[in-house]
Amino acid sequence: MVIDAHGHYTTVPPGLRVFRALQISQMGKPVKSPVNISDDEIRASLEKGQLRLLDERGIDVMIFSPMASAMGHHFGNALISRYWTEVNNELIHRVCTLYPNRFAGACSLPQSPGVSPRDCAQELERCVNEFGFVACNLNPDPSGGYWTGPPLGDEWWYPLYERLEALDVPAMIHASATCNPAFHTTGSHYLNVDATAFLQLMESRVFRDFPRLRIVMPHGGGNVPYQAARYRALAIMNKWEPFDDFVKRIYFDTTVYNQDAMELLIKVVGVDNIIFASEMLGGVNTTDPASGQSFDDNRRFIDAISWLSDADRQKIFETNARKVYARLGAVTAGA
Amino acid sequence: MVIDAHGHYTTVPPGLRVFRALQISQMGKPVKSPVNISDDEIRASLEKGQLRLLDERGIDVMIFSPMASAMGHHFGNALISRYWTEVNNELIHRVCTLYPNRFAGACSLPQSPGVSPRDCAQELERCVNEFGFVACNLNPDPSGGYWTGPPLGDEWWYPLYERLEALDVPAMIHASATCNPAFHTTGSHYLNVDATAFLQLMESRVFRDFPRLRIVMPHGGGNVPYQAARYRALAIMNKWEPFDDFVKRIYFDTTVYNQDAMELLIKVVGVDNIIFASEMLGGVNTTDPASGQSFDDNRRFIDAISWLSDADRQKIFETNARKVYARLGAVTAGA
Repeated sequence: MVIDAHGHYTTVPPGLRVFRALQISQMGKPVKSPVNISDDEIRASLEKGQLRLLDERGIDVMIFSPMASAMGHHFGNALISRYWTEVNNELIHRVCTLYPNRFAGACSLPQSPGVSPRDCAQELERCVNEFGFVACNLNPDPSGGYWTGPPLGDEWWYPLYERLEALDVPAMIHASATCNPAFHTTGSHYLNVDATAFLQLMESRVFRDFPRLRIVMPHGGGNVPYQAARYRALAIMNKWEPFDDFVKRIYFDTTVYNQDAMELLIKVVGVDNIIFASEMLGGVNTTDPASGQSFDDNRRFIDAISWLSDADRQKIFETNARKVYARLGAVTAGA
Repeated sequence: MVIDAHGHYTTVPPGLRVFRALQISQMGKPVKSPVNISDDEIRASLEKGQLRLLDERGIDVMIFSPMASAMGHHFGNALISRYWTEVNNELIHRVCTLYPNRFAGACSLPQSPGVSPRDCAQELERCVNEFGFVACNLNPDPSGGYWTGPPLGDEWWYPLYERLEALDVPAMIHASATCNPAFHTTGSHYLNVDATAFLQLMESRVFRDFPRLRIVMPHGGGNVPYQAARYRALAIMNKWEPFDDFVKRIYFDTTVYNQDAMELLIKVVGVDNIIFASEMLGGVNTTDPASGQSFDDNRRFIDAISWLSDADRQKIFETNARKVYARLGAVTAGA
């Protein structure tokens, strides 16, 4: 079985954007109005897109979450964020209900700048306990590129980590759009957030305080495999846990898109901490002119690595994901 | 000849810190008081450190600039930044005067949040025309991690680019310390700044408007070689210049610290755009337990690459630097 741990509902029907647009006119008095999307619209939005590609590429199950760039935690107040997050998660639940063996849900959290992560617990519990979701996405910078909040090592985040451990679900680190003109959302901002979060955790005691917490780094860890020696030196100079031990506390997805990067990633992190993912349809939704294939058709890079055994590949494609996404069993049983 | 394009005066005598400390008590009325450092102190600060290592490692000339983390553009107002920058640059000038064939100067700029880069022109000209400096360091985020200024593609920066072209000197992109607790200065912040600057330039028309502008990316480009396929896809999706053309407009230093990273860097960027540098003594000033050698003794990784020719190595160690740092001739003539 092949599990893809990183897909967003980027092909969402227009009814969701209608809801979002109305939030601008309701900023003073937010309302959770109904979202007007039919089951047929959901089917159409997936069957030409993600489902077709999953079939073509031999991927059985995708862990599916709301559009990341549209999470927009920087917009409006906590109630705006809550309503928007809820309707997005409810839509993912409808997707998972329509295709129970192809998609497993991962929720967004109703984060908002300056609002305690404790206030996300209720929505996380609803998604896991009522909807059967298997993970959440955690945005380390809800300000959208101004970095006004405490780092992930701060106890500010601990109530959320407690709930993640109690519910036995992992968090994928994932930024949303930046509202800061210094950054490009899916270019510099996403990758900066990954690298920043990695270092925030590295200089923290989070994994000592939450030994069962599971964190997934997207985009192949931003810069981590390439800058491994720098991190290795910093850990020595700062008397942190050695890099090569610390890196095993985190799981890295494979959303990098050429052979060299994929090999470097797996070599630095090790097969036990790699989880297959394509992030399709997402940040690199176009054809590589060099190969004539889609950039995000990245399974082929793993298949082509001569120094991986079949057992290694099974870990990357399936077993590691089952370990990290412990609640995935119900979904994959039927696939 | 071997030229190292990236060294900071990190072993500076305490007299400079005395000046800096006094700036805190003078914030309301900044003063450019004398800096109390003797020539013997300067010699002692270098001969046990950078000079000894340059000799040990067979490096002839180092392009030498003030401590990057201490540039601290976020601290105080424009006049505080100006005085601090001036005394740092004057100290680099003294170093270059004491060791005229070993060090070539690169200046800091008196940047300050919200202050036009136009106001840096005078200090840049002083350093190049009066001191014989060959380059400057440009901080894309003088706010120190809050990213409150315009991106490098904004015309805000154009007066500085005009001066760089007119003076025929390059700018190395280099952050200073972060005052934002979200970041680690030499870890996440430096590397984020590199990647962010790369993308700011990539989505801009800077190199069309300044075809003779030369920009050097430190730290092996942050994440650029590892995430090349992502940048490649983004360029296609956004109709920017193709990544593999754009990357040739920029020069990358070699301050990465293991074999795999060095090979990936040179492979992605190409030998014509790589400039040898070690950033010693700097961010990775410790011994790699795996090899027993200093992390920043990174010349050996280039020497070990079997697919580089002698002509390639000469470009990386010498010729590319002479091209980019066009005013280096006077220094290297005597070396």
